[in-house]
Amino acid sequence: MIVFQVPLLESSYPILLGECLLVNSEVWQRFLKGREFCVITDDAVFPLYLDHICKGLNCLSSEAIIFPNGERHKNLETLTHILTKLTARHFPRDGILIALGGGVVGDMVGFAASIYHRGVKFIQVPTTTLAMLDSSVGGKTAVNLGEAKNNIGAFHQPLAVVMDLSTLATLNEREYKAGLAEAIKHALIQSPKFFYWLVQHTELILKCDPVTLAELIQRSCEIKANIVCADEREQNIRMLLNFGHTFGHAIEAYSHYQDFKHGEAVAIGMMCALRFTQAEPTLIKDAAALLSAFGLPLVVPATYQQDKLLELMQHDKKKRDGRLNLVLVQELGKAFIKQEDLCKIHF
Amino acid sequence: MIVFQVPLLESSYPILLGECLLVNSEVWQRFLKGREFCVITDDAVFPLYLDHICKGLNCLSSEAIIFPNGERHKNLETLTHILTKLTARHFPRDGILIALGGGVVGDMVGFAASIYHRGVKFIQVPTTTLAMLDSSVGGKTAVNLGEAKNNIGAFHQPLAVVMDLSTLATLNEREYKAGLAEAIKHALIQSPKFFYWLVQHTELILKCDPVTLAELIQRSCEIKANIVCADEREQNIRMLLNFGHTFGHAIEAYSHYQDFKHGEAVAIGMMCALRFTQAEPTLIKDAAALLSAFGLPLVVPATYQQDKLLELMQHDKKKRDGRLNLVLVQELGKAFIKQEDLCKIHF
Repeated sequence: MIVFQVPLLESSYPILLGECLLVNSEVWQRFLKGREFCVITDDAVFPLYLDHICKGLNCLSSEAIIFPNGERHKNLETLTHILTKLTARHFPRDGILIALGGGVVGDMVGFAASIYHRGVKFIQVPTTTLAMLDSSVGGKTAVNLGEAKNNIGAFHQPLAVVMDLSTLATLNEREYKAGLAEAIKHALIQSPKFFYWLVQHTELILKCDPVTLAELIQRSCEIKANIVCADEREQNIRMLLNFGHTFGHAIEAYSHYQDFKHGEAVAIGMMCALRFTQAEPTLIKDAAALLSAFGLPLVVPATYQQDKLLELMQHDKKKRDGRLNLVLVQELGKAFIKQEDLCKIHF
Repeated sequence: MIVFQVPLLESSYPILLGECLLVNSEVWQRFLKGREFCVITDDAVFPLYLDHICKGLNCLSSEAIIFPNGERHKNLETLTHILTKLTARHFPRDGILIALGGGVVGDMVGFAASIYHRGVKFIQVPTTTLAMLDSSVGGKTAVNLGEAKNNIGAFHQPLAVVMDLSTLATLNEREYKAGLAEAIKHALIQSPKFFYWLVQHTELILKCDPVTLAELIQRSCEIKANIVCADEREQNIRMLLNFGHTFGHAIEAYSHYQDFKHGEAVAIGMMCALRFTQAEPTLIKDAAALLSAFGLPLVVPATYQQDKLLELMQHDKKKRDGRLNLVLVQELGKAFIKQEDLCKIHF
């Protein structure tokens, strides 16, 4: 097991990374220390891993709160369901919520934890590459309101993140690869060294080699943690983590989250941003090659209409003056923010 | 106009206190500085003061978001209504919400501000004695979930508090007096000097003399602000502000918030706490005399059943071991926290 720290100012917390951690009761006792807890998960993860974690926690799986899987359930209704269940069982203020699942579970349970009794502790237990590499680190929690993605939320740091690599075994190949887009993003915005490491280790990563995967996750989380640490509330440099996302959110929303996984939309979004800002030709070529090697898409489908994409982009981050803050990369590892007129942007 | 500061560590903010502030455009320009804003109020306050504030803000009253008045509407449904309206109009992340109304409006709009786009700024514009003396200061925001009062919420400090004393003119006498219970609470837990000042100025206070009222509000807010400043997240001494509230919440909940206003329930709750802890006889006598002079009730109605009250008290702040943290006052101005067995408590 690897343990490394996310070094935030007020609420530093550890990430535990290894195999078969769910069933390991020592891992849990380290944080729970006899306090009341509640496992919250979705109906895709529950048949796979609820029994494992309940074994480690020495509790009954019937005590877990379960909600329907999928981005479309990441909303205020599901949040209300969770909060109502917690209230009905008089879950105490010093209790600990445990978020078992992918990005949706982590975002929603983290948000529930931030507002139940004005804030209770929670542990992230990500079970997807996307959640391990990205969403479980940084303290952003949220739900969607209608088409507005992550519109309602809070900053709430977890007590700890427990990443059990064994859970990736059941992830389908498409989800597995989609999550890796965020690692490539971290490399593109911040670290040429990590970028070339990804190029060199593509084969082992795609084979899910545990040692390589652990290194990938640790390096990726460390890049993200350093940025988050410098700007926890996204006042300035944390925005760099949105590279590919302003384009990507519009691409996802275009098909109501049907055509692309989040990481796939981000992959296309990063390529859109690189082409838009006329990045160095070698960088465009290398980024495209790495994304392709990971099986990720590079271009917006020909059937997608520019006008509608731009409208979705504008709604995502509306500015009254019709300008958008875009994160751009022209040179590998050097992201920057630039305000652009919406009318000049193209996908 | 009096201006004084709530001296918090990270987010210090000013309280502006005076007459006819709603219509005063200079007051508003000081904080808005051209940014988009949205007035949110309830349907009891809107016919009385929405036009006033819109005159000061130079905006249309049709742009306000209005929800039904009353504690029973302080819930996740109304919150969703507000958030949906804000999302539909693409209210921006740098916009400012303006909470015009009593404690319910302030609590709910403050909470909406804390989670919309993971936090936007807001201005409290309290229009009741309760909200001016107590709920608009301190950054506690919340909604109720079922019978669980303030169960879901956040700590979110306002950008400023604008207290227009003129708005108290339309408050009915019972509401006006009920709010004053919180000032008496601040005196009992912290300041013998303020307690005797209240005794001496009872008549002027009940006549709504503006100079006396301004001093009352400022002194009361300063006591609260000092406590909040020492412990923003209620880890320890901020709990002292709950004096009378653990009993009071059970008393309110008993009749589903029908029999008593919040301040009235707190008045009875403070007397329960004083009698329970066998405070000095003169203190019990003086507190009862002052609360009576303000027209506030002192005892639980004879028809209320002890068992049911204790059950409600337990649900309010459940501890697994059947013990409760009670705030007690034995000597004027010296509140303390004591853990008590629920079975020993009586109303």
